[in-house]
Amino acid sequence: MKTTYDCIPCFIRQALDAARLATSDEKIHEQVLRGVLAAASKMNLDQSPPVMGQYIHKLIRELSGHDDPYKKIKDRFNNFALKLYPDLQQRIKTSSNPMDTAIRMAIAGNIIDFGVNAKIDNSIIFDTIEQAMSVQLFGNIDILCDSIDTAKNILYLGDNCGEIVFDRLLIEQLPVHKVTFVVRGGPIINDATMADARETGMTELVTVMDNGSNVPGTVLEKCSKEFRECFAHADLIIAKGQGNYETLSSCEKNIFFLLKAKCQVISGHMGCEPGSFIVKRSS
Amino acid sequence: MKTTYDCIPCFIRQALDAARLATSDEKIHEQVLRGVLAAASKMNLDQSPPVMGQYIHKLIRELSGHDDPYKKIKDRFNNFALKLYPDLQQRIKTSSNPMDTAIRMAIAGNIIDFGVNAKIDNSIIFDTIEQAMSVQLFGNIDILCDSIDTAKNILYLGDNCGEIVFDRLLIEQLPVHKVTFVVRGGPIINDATMADARETGMTELVTVMDNGSNVPGTVLEKCSKEFRECFAHADLIIAKGQGNYETLSSCEKNIFFLLKAKCQVISGHMGCEPGSFIVKRSS
Repeated sequence: MKTTYDCIPCFIRQALDAARLATSDEKIHEQVLRGVLAAASKMNLDQSPPVMGQYIHKLIRELSGHDDPYKKIKDRFNNFALKLYPDLQQRIKTSSNPMDTAIRMAIAGNIIDFGVNAKIDNSIIFDTIEQAMSVQLFGNIDILCDSIDTAKNILYLGDNCGEIVFDRLLIEQLPVHKVTFVVRGGPIINDATMADARETGMTELVTVMDNGSNVPGTVLEKCSKEFRECFAHADLIIAKGQGNYETLSSCEKNIFFLLKAKCQVISGHMGCEPGSFIVKRSS
Repeated sequence: MKTTYDCIPCFIRQALDAARLATSDEKIHEQVLRGVLAAASKMNLDQSPPVMGQYIHKLIRELSGHDDPYKKIKDRFNNFALKLYPDLQQRIKTSSNPMDTAIRMAIAGNIIDFGVNAKIDNSIIFDTIEQAMSVQLFGNIDILCDSIDTAKNILYLGDNCGEIVFDRLLIEQLPVHKVTFVVRGGPIINDATMADARETGMTELVTVMDNGSNVPGTVLEKCSKEFRECFAHADLIIAKGQGNYETLSSCEKNIFFLLKAKCQVISGHMGCEPGSFIVKRSS
């Protein structure tokens, strides 16, 4: 999807939040703001929003001198989700429909998105899990389950740290030998990278690869050749989160987008209510 | 007060809302956005926020070809407030402390501010009036009442349309022969101009002058010589709204700011909770 006008004020707000998170130096906050404002004034709106996200966070890394400003946040939410993991796994195992419960759990995990909201606490995660268990999903879980049953190889595009543990809970319900889990090629916001896949046990469960790019989404032209080949050969792609939806919504592959709609631009584009829990097949 | 970093994303959001209000032409929405982004990237942050407000709305007027995009909104809220006027006037007259009630009413009227919020409906105005009647005010009404008793001439700096009717209710409780009411020198957002003072009966009640400037606040250097002289000679200034606070908060005059704190930058600067009803003397 293209960048909408409504994305622009949100970019500026995100840039300021992220700059404050990276450093307490107010001069750098100002440099980031001025840089992002100037870039946004000339930006190509045909690009998807994560391309600007990549620019913003590159600028913050350069100006602040921090290679990975979200490292502490990423560790914190990986550890928090790992603590929840045994109970959530038990809940899935003992539920009347483990696949349905695991899919809902994976969507709930998408709330841990620091690109949209710089203030996420544990209570919002608990609330989102409970909501996800009973809410009417936007989309159709049954079609996804059918696709899983018939798929020869499944590419699972991860999104954020913490969330990756919720993805693991779902992947445990899939035919793991057919699954490849994908992380970003480098640090960007709180998105999961190879280090996070290792820390959260994902590498012991399935094959994990990185996509060779640090866009907070999946812009194929910016990804590695190796990833693009895997992507081309997959007959089922499960894509987590807003960034993957924003960058792949027009892609002609068998993609199921699993996410929580956390902004009005996304819910408007998908045709659902803001806050919806989504399992939507590419059209 | 100076422009804070938190004002910047808000400017961009306001510019988009205002552009959409002025025209349905999406090309102009984009031109406004790009223009405001470029200007904000180079702006002097020592200026108060209304200076950027003036720039944004000048750009929108020029690009949309509308001299006064808020004309319909201004008329609507003047008429709505005039319909409420007899009942509100009765409520003040029959209250145990008419001056206190009238001051609270005038602060409540400040909710009609399209600079902060492009979506104001009648119900929020009713709710704000009821809140204002009983809420603990931030500041001290008694000191204002004492100042009114001893003042030789009172300059009352108006703010928005609709709100001007609430100002009239307060001014009816003041020694009207000592009061001069001030409107903006030209259309800007939904701020009251001389035409609105006439439509709402203010010109029949007290002397009304315009300040010679269409900044949505009071930047003295940009105001007319005549207004600056009145300002210099006034021994009590009642300044309504965020824009007047933002531009006059450092001014060394006997100013009472009457407003509702509608954004966190203002409440943070004043040291009160967001949403507070304020009657604060200049320090």
